[in-house]
Amino acid sequence: MFKRVAIVGVGFMGGSFSFALQSCFPCEVFGVDINPTALERAKALGAIQEGSTNLEKLSHFRPELVVLATPVRTFEGIAKGLKDILPPRTVITDLGSVKGHIVYRMEEILGENFVGGHPIAGTEKSGVENSIKDLFKGKRTILTPTHRTNREALEKVKELWEAIGSKVEFMDPYDHDVVFGAVSHLPHAVAFALIDALLLLTKKTNIDLFQYPGGGFKDFTRIAASDPIMWRDIFLENKHNILDAIDCYISSLKRLRELIAEERVEELTQYLKESRENRLRIE
Amino acid sequence: MFKRVAIVGVGFMGGSFSFALQSCFPCEVFGVDINPTALERAKALGAIQEGSTNLEKLSHFRPELVVLATPVRTFEGIAKGLKDILPPRTVITDLGSVKGHIVYRMEEILGENFVGGHPIAGTEKSGVENSIKDLFKGKRTILTPTHRTNREALEKVKELWEAIGSKVEFMDPYDHDVVFGAVSHLPHAVAFALIDALLLLTKKTNIDLFQYPGGGFKDFTRIAASDPIMWRDIFLENKHNILDAIDCYISSLKRLRELIAEERVEELTQYLKESRENRLRIE
Repeated sequence: MFKRVAIVGVGFMGGSFSFALQSCFPCEVFGVDINPTALERAKALGAIQEGSTNLEKLSHFRPELVVLATPVRTFEGIAKGLKDILPPRTVITDLGSVKGHIVYRMEEILGENFVGGHPIAGTEKSGVENSIKDLFKGKRTILTPTHRTNREALEKVKELWEAIGSKVEFMDPYDHDVVFGAVSHLPHAVAFALIDALLLLTKKTNIDLFQYPGGGFKDFTRIAASDPIMWRDIFLENKHNILDAIDCYISSLKRLRELIAEERVEELTQYLKESRENRLRIE
Repeated sequence: MFKRVAIVGVGFMGGSFSFALQSCFPCEVFGVDINPTALERAKALGAIQEGSTNLEKLSHFRPELVVLATPVRTFEGIAKGLKDILPPRTVITDLGSVKGHIVYRMEEILGENFVGGHPIAGTEKSGVENSIKDLFKGKRTILTPTHRTNREALEKVKELWEAIGSKVEFMDPYDHDVVFGAVSHLPHAVAFALIDALLLLTKKTNIDLFQYPGGGFKDFTRIAASDPIMWRDIFLENKHNILDAIDCYISSLKRLRELIAEERVEELTQYLKESRENRLRIE
């Protein structure tokens, strides 16, 4: 397995990945982050052995694997910085929530040894200090190889995730963005907007609604505490699918609104019953 | 405390309330439900000692307290049925999620011994078999007395909830509906609509999106598994506030959509940051 691993972005995801990695097999981890405090913390916690704010330092470290764990809009710049400093057979992968065009762009810059990856795991927490060693255990990881992906690199990345305890699944990069635009990015947009609406309603009603967090509200909006920069990047990079999903969602909501407004009792009951049954399907 | 208690509606809420009650002090519980199977189950589980599908049977039972635990749209009909069969000083309360006009209507029918109540506790589960004895422990219960409410009845209901371990708070019935229209009813509408949108997107994309329940989606949509009849009634009875809240929410969502569509990076970041900070306020 990989003995020298570089992690670019030592936050919650990068940190969790590094701990998972190190608990599986002996390896040396070098961290890169624009934030020196994050590097210090990561080092103190054992998430990395060495680190630098300067990506170029990787030329001396000579990693066998580089893992991108930064917000997705930084990937292209990082790839350009990595391109000329990595040993020729270095495998590069990522933990990003958007694939699609990003995967193809990364291939253009980095070549066939880039393997797109997306572990379906996370919490609303951020920061290396909140890292969870077992975050990926029992969870799915989506890999998005293309016709160009080097099969050996793909196999190695797959084995790595399986060693960590994750169930690997392959998907087309663009299909991935359609699916996760709907089941993950849309719910996050919905949760961020719900908090925004409660702010508006607090102003409108002159009652501090945030004083009444009962009735499932806390659980429901937990994901609105997720990292804003990470989510801004996801929304912008998967823009097309998210806009489609939001439009579809607004039309669902408007239909529900109409059934309530017009007191169409039968149809309203049917709407809620169907939603309930479909929700129960995923238990 | 009350020694003879009638519970109308022996589902999840009625059952949980009965178990909480009986674990606090000795009392005899009579259940009324339109569903004979629910009554049998409730009896087998010890949630009630006796029961009937016929509300009029309460005239023989002569309860000191009657608790309405049915969907809120049934309250008026039940109150009319109770009005002439209860002993004069019987206290009547409810566990309903909508207060406002319902409380005044109940007072008109039942008089000063009606005390509106709403425990801020629940799960997406339904049915007496899922009852939780400690459901209300440490949770808030809102009581909504009016100028007309009998103070002795109010005091007794308050003491009952406190004995169960709930923290009692008083609110104006209409304020209650504004607050819970926003923090509880709106999130439920949002969750039901999200499942509906995923159904539409599944048809549109030809990918079964319900196969990919990662990324917080399960937690986020759990409340969409709630009882459809109960929620239909809540939506219809708190129609005015819910429509306001949905409108406000759609405008929040549209603003988020616009910031993504137009790639207004600064404003988008600000929007997400503010939502995150406000969400963290309620932790």
